[in-house]
Amino acid sequence: MEIAELGEFGLIKHLTNNIDIKNSSTLKAVGDDCAVIAPEQELQTIVTTDLLMEGVHFDLTYMPLRHLGYKAVMVNLSDIYAMNGTPRQITVSLAISKRFLVEDMEELYSGIRLACERHNVDIVGGDTTSSMTGLAISITAIGVAAKEEIAYRSGAQETDLICVSGNLGAAYMGLQILEREKAVYNQQVIEATEQARKNGTSAEEAIAQIPQPDFAGKEYLLERQMKPEARKDIVEKLRQANVKITSMIDISDGLSSELMHICEQSRCGCRIYEERIPLDYQTAVAAEEFNMNVSTCALNGGEDYELLFTVPLTANDVVSAIEDVKVIGYITKESLGKALISRDGSEFELKAQGWNPLKD
Amino acid sequence: MEIAELGEFGLIKHLTNNIDIKNSSTLKAVGDDCAVIAPEQELQTIVTTDLLMEGVHFDLTYMPLRHLGYKAVMVNLSDIYAMNGTPRQITVSLAISKRFLVEDMEELYSGIRLACERHNVDIVGGDTTSSMTGLAISITAIGVAAKEEIAYRSGAQETDLICVSGNLGAAYMGLQILEREKAVYNQQVIEATEQARKNGTSAEEAIAQIPQPDFAGKEYLLERQMKPEARKDIVEKLRQANVKITSMIDISDGLSSELMHICEQSRCGCRIYEERIPLDYQTAVAAEEFNMNVSTCALNGGEDYELLFTVPLTANDVVSAIEDVKVIGYITKESLGKALISRDGSEFELKAQGWNPLKD
Repeated sequence: MEIAELGEFGLIKHLTNNIDIKNSSTLKAVGDDCAVIAPEQELQTIVTTDLLMEGVHFDLTYMPLRHLGYKAVMVNLSDIYAMNGTPRQITVSLAISKRFLVEDMEELYSGIRLACERHNVDIVGGDTTSSMTGLAISITAIGVAAKEEIAYRSGAQETDLICVSGNLGAAYMGLQILEREKAVYNQQVIEATEQARKNGTSAEEAIAQIPQPDFAGKEYLLERQMKPEARKDIVEKLRQANVKITSMIDISDGLSSELMHICEQSRCGCRIYEERIPLDYQTAVAAEEFNMNVSTCALNGGEDYELLFTVPLTANDVVSAIEDVKVIGYITKESLGKALISRDGSEFELKAQGWNPLKD
Repeated sequence: MEIAELGEFGLIKHLTNNIDIKNSSTLKAVGDDCAVIAPEQELQTIVTTDLLMEGVHFDLTYMPLRHLGYKAVMVNLSDIYAMNGTPRQITVSLAISKRFLVEDMEELYSGIRLACERHNVDIVGGDTTSSMTGLAISITAIGVAAKEEIAYRSGAQETDLICVSGNLGAAYMGLQILEREKAVYNQQVIEATEQARKNGTSAEEAIAQIPQPDFAGKEYLLERQMKPEARKDIVEKLRQANVKITSMIDISDGLSSELMHICEQSRCGCRIYEERIPLDYQTAVAAEEFNMNVSTCALNGGEDYELLFTVPLTANDVVSAIEDVKVIGYITKESLGKALISRDGSEFELKAQGWNPLKD
């Protein structure tokens, strides 16, 4: 169905129909000039927003719309968790070019709704409009956090331990694989079309016969790229273990870049150990295949959506016992700089080569 | 300066530099994973968001970036006032194509900052990224409102008076004038280029000599289109006069469309009088020039950003005494339908022909 048939209000109604409100603080969701949210006893409001543009942040030739919707929510929830907060509401704005159908938006929204269900979040508003080219997705997430528990980037102290959740570099390797397969596929299309022209046969049929790429043994990397999961579980485990988080940030632009944010805002230095950076086996295999240094991928590859945080030295035993959390180094005086200790014991200055959407 | 020279974080820092925090509830603005906002005693949080796309919502051939920034904030603040709330914070996300320079973004931001200053609003976050084509601006506004004062669309009751602020149709006529002048200018460029080619002279020089359009007598219409002002003053006057607002909406898609939202959500009908719809003299003159019915412009032209609201019949004297507020009709039983009474006393069914960004 063409989107113009429903119109803006019709489309919003269609997509947000039958969504149950999950949070008692959501007093008014979609349908008025504003959403209305009740304050929660003693809690502060935290807000984050992300704007995702087709051709810059995602490529629909390999990214299913359902996954894209899911990911668009996750990147925002990840920021809420990175403050040690709990997400409650999101607004979803979409700019849609004419090539999309109502069914496409249903797919996108199914991913958005799944993400919201898993994280107990209400869709409370948004804006739906057209775009001249491509798809734009702007999501704002609203959450709550207790004043004394909020983890800023600025609270790291000398001797604090530097911890990361999960493993790093996998989403980046997933992207490399998808980009490579896309290039291979495009080449195959060119060749099939040329061959069909020579044979006087149908190009469409020749293209339809191009085999699907084989992603066996790389499933985890693709999932990390296409369906990241915000680390609610880590924040909950730290709370249960009564660990004081002194600073926290989510890893969206690469470990180096994020750690430098913490050091700059906390006015401190750091020492991290290459051998301690958590890596998945598939990441290591793929890095070798692409002739890349796996540590470089882990340090500078983006979109991991893991948590990077610091805790007091005294919490060592407690955090080390938490599954999927790894201590990778410690905070130092600012004057000692930001150091990476390589596997052979050499010391390097940490540099942020994180993904910069405004460069190149 | 090219934006790539600064990078994402550099650009954000550059643009949000030296902004004073105006609200005590803004605990953390730009610079962390989330903004942090303190709850205000007894007040609820209200949230609205708008996504503006180049080529759909604005045309940079005649819209100065500074005005665009101002307007992008205003359309959001207008929604906050339409709930009878007070805006406190905004987040600003921008997607920027390569043709923009740092200076362009400074211009855009100067308008954003001016709007924030006038309405006492803090910029607390956002996202800055690149776009393949054009400019995208996504703003989310956050405000507060007392529970018992929030004006929903659903509270209108039979016999309530229907009121509007300011006058209607001017922004729409402003747009018609700008579009006409753009078409005239484009034609002049074609002719000047052709003439220069024939004469063997410089096309650039010929284009530079095209006279500026004469907007004398139409300044108000252009201002209404390019620099709308959210009606904070009306909300304040109503509060001072102790008027109970039973329902409210801001007029962004045309009076008809907005009044129908109120009627549908309040499950009521309405009767409004054509002769009572407030019009500016310039709007009437321009409508005649364009051979349009001025009432149709006022009923269906968008982007007025005036307030449409209902008050109890008993408030008649009080609202009628407020400058720039006009009673245009009253609320009826749902079964009586939505009626427009024309100047000659004929009755028409109200139809929403409001601007639909997803149609055509």
